[in-house]
Amino acid sequence: MSDEGSAGVVTTKQWRFAEPPDELELRCGGRLGPIDVAYETYGELTPERDNAVLICHALSGDAHVAGRQSPDDRKVGWWDIMIGPGKPIDTEKFFVICSNCIGGCKGSTGPSSINPATGAPYALGFPMVTVSDMVKVQHALLSEHLGLERLLCVTGGSFGGMQVLQWPIDYPDMVYAALPIASTSRLNAQGIAFDEVGRQAIYGDPNWKGGDYYGGQVPNRGLAVARMVGHITYLSDQSMHEKFGRALQDRKRVGYDFGPPDFQVESYLRHQGDSFVQRFDANSYLYITKAMDYFDLVSDCGSLVEAFRGVRSRFLVMSFTGDWLFPTYQSKEIVRALHANGVKVSFCEIEAGYGHDVFLLPNPVIERLIRDDLSGFDNNDPLGYLFDLGKDMRA
Amino acid sequence: MSDEGSAGVVTTKQWRFAEPPDELELRCGGRLGPIDVAYETYGELTPERDNAVLICHALSGDAHVAGRQSPDDRKVGWWDIMIGPGKPIDTEKFFVICSNCIGGCKGSTGPSSINPATGAPYALGFPMVTVSDMVKVQHALLSEHLGLERLLCVTGGSFGGMQVLQWPIDYPDMVYAALPIASTSRLNAQGIAFDEVGRQAIYGDPNWKGGDYYGGQVPNRGLAVARMVGHITYLSDQSMHEKFGRALQDRKRVGYDFGPPDFQVESYLRHQGDSFVQRFDANSYLYITKAMDYFDLVSDCGSLVEAFRGVRSRFLVMSFTGDWLFPTYQSKEIVRALHANGVKVSFCEIEAGYGHDVFLLPNPVIERLIRDDLSGFDNNDPLGYLFDLGKDMRA
Repeated sequence: MSDEGSAGVVTTKQWRFAEPPDELELRCGGRLGPIDVAYETYGELTPERDNAVLICHALSGDAHVAGRQSPDDRKVGWWDIMIGPGKPIDTEKFFVICSNCIGGCKGSTGPSSINPATGAPYALGFPMVTVSDMVKVQHALLSEHLGLERLLCVTGGSFGGMQVLQWPIDYPDMVYAALPIASTSRLNAQGIAFDEVGRQAIYGDPNWKGGDYYGGQVPNRGLAVARMVGHITYLSDQSMHEKFGRALQDRKRVGYDFGPPDFQVESYLRHQGDSFVQRFDANSYLYITKAMDYFDLVSDCGSLVEAFRGVRSRFLVMSFTGDWLFPTYQSKEIVRALHANGVKVSFCEIEAGYGHDVFLLPNPVIERLIRDDLSGFDNNDPLGYLFDLGKDMRA
Repeated sequence: MSDEGSAGVVTTKQWRFAEPPDELELRCGGRLGPIDVAYETYGELTPERDNAVLICHALSGDAHVAGRQSPDDRKVGWWDIMIGPGKPIDTEKFFVICSNCIGGCKGSTGPSSINPATGAPYALGFPMVTVSDMVKVQHALLSEHLGLERLLCVTGGSFGGMQVLQWPIDYPDMVYAALPIASTSRLNAQGIAFDEVGRQAIYGDPNWKGGDYYGGQVPNRGLAVARMVGHITYLSDQSMHEKFGRALQDRKRVGYDFGPPDFQVESYLRHQGDSFVQRFDANSYLYITKAMDYFDLVSDCGSLVEAFRGVRSRFLVMSFTGDWLFPTYQSKEIVRALHANGVKVSFCEIEAGYGHDVFLLPNPVIERLIRDDLSGFDNNDPLGYLFDLGKDMRA
């Protein structure tokens, strides 16, 4: 395999902190410790420690954001298109960090981890963790373990973008630039509704057993349905039409039965569900969707303008025309509230019909925006597609 | 209760036909008989038999479209706002018929009916029925049982609109006017995907047992999840925001747990799911969503223009701005293909952010359009909101 532009072979590392009695205090009032954090790093930290870039992953992501985990690993990290030598987040210039969020199931402490107090998996005994708690853990990793005092940039899409928004609020002195992509300051009712449907599908699976399924049969049917409905929301009417239309799956005419899928889109969805359950824990799905639902910068501070009051980072906010899960108007709310605080912010709604998940795909505009932003371009619309909404807002 | 404008107390009637050996031949190649048809009628047929209006119901509807089923019935029919004395479909002028579709569970023969060959419910032994088959049954009811040779109008929304489109194709001499509302000539990939998620939720319920659950526990959890995801698609981001936003359900702050719903929208969805399973059969849900997926006037005839080749009815096509399940572009495809055949067609995209289900709610524009259309207005844009797309298409 060619490794040109690849971050190379990387190993997921582990760091443990918050050992009792110094457990982490959580937003919900509970405490959690010890906490294991799975993370990866790419590139080298400068002696001045001024080139660190933090990547925050979305709902089902993990710490493995770029490169391969062994020389013959056929699968690259989830944002390999963006991170590597010569890529927009250039690992020859930047020291890149990505960690698995707590509550997840990819090496960091979550509901499937062993609760040291009982010797058994936490299951629903795991405390509810919020975006703010996840950011607190990332901060501990960076400051206590990696010795960083500054982040050049924090970026990520979707649920990762929520963490990106939380960072400059909770640690205003630490973040130079924040790049939230296809994100929101709070889910709307429709977003909560889709999350709730996914949770109900899991609750309804008899293998779920109130979360106590570890060591036995796991609630794969419910989790697969949750993933299927989620997946529809990551695409768009247009992209599903272009990708599948009404094309039939391995047949010349519809089957008039309930057996194999009639349409390719059904086959695709079933495959998405089936492969997801191989790599994800149902309880983690519950916890992380709850963290998404609970994330609400408006209610935290009374208003979004108030939420960004102490922010000193500069922002590049991106949204996609075809994203109906985190629509552009939600990014614009963020941009307006930042401007009201005099924060330097660029905004770009990118023409991309694919849907919410477009940030995970090769896209020259996204790549160039991130590359230029990290290269320190002053955002005077050098490329013709940077639209500084703030100018209009203030006019 | 005031009964002003009410169609009054109506009784659902039954008609049986297609007694073996004269079973109905179905599109799938199978045969079905005997067939029971549940139907209601309102108003009086003129001696000339020229005032009949057929209403086609949507996925979860039934024959009880208006009025009450007993004097103290608190619930009126599903389109009572539209049908009754003095209402847009005025029962003092028109003879209105509505029948439950085959495959359903509201009195017409469906998978929960007893298969006379076995003495047990059909379950998945029920043959696959299509929109065309459903229309064939409606036609038999009207012509064989009610003695009708002409329909002044056939109308209905969503899945009902698919039947409305099928009628003038299969029975071109019988239909004077067709009014499909929020409908499509074929579901797009996203629509099929949502249907498939609902079916997978039902398949995954252990009580479903391959469809053989009659007499035992029924797959309520799966059916409820199917209804929840369906319900999201019947509303819109905007209407869910206006109706619920992020308002909490009976609490001052979020619960940080997986117990009672945190948000009103979650409580609403759970209620929708729970109440639906009281009144609907899971297998009927499977059959009718398959009929929706299979409906495809384009593949039936090679093109939509070809599909409408023999049509002689006039059309009023309506869509809603906020409908993302059956979006306006799909109605426009219908209008263009009708125009290509020289069919007289009016089209109106109604400004309504509520979503797909808006046709079930009071809406003065819809009501006036239907009233005027049935009153025989010539559609020279008398009210300012009739937009004859065809003029532009031909220009």
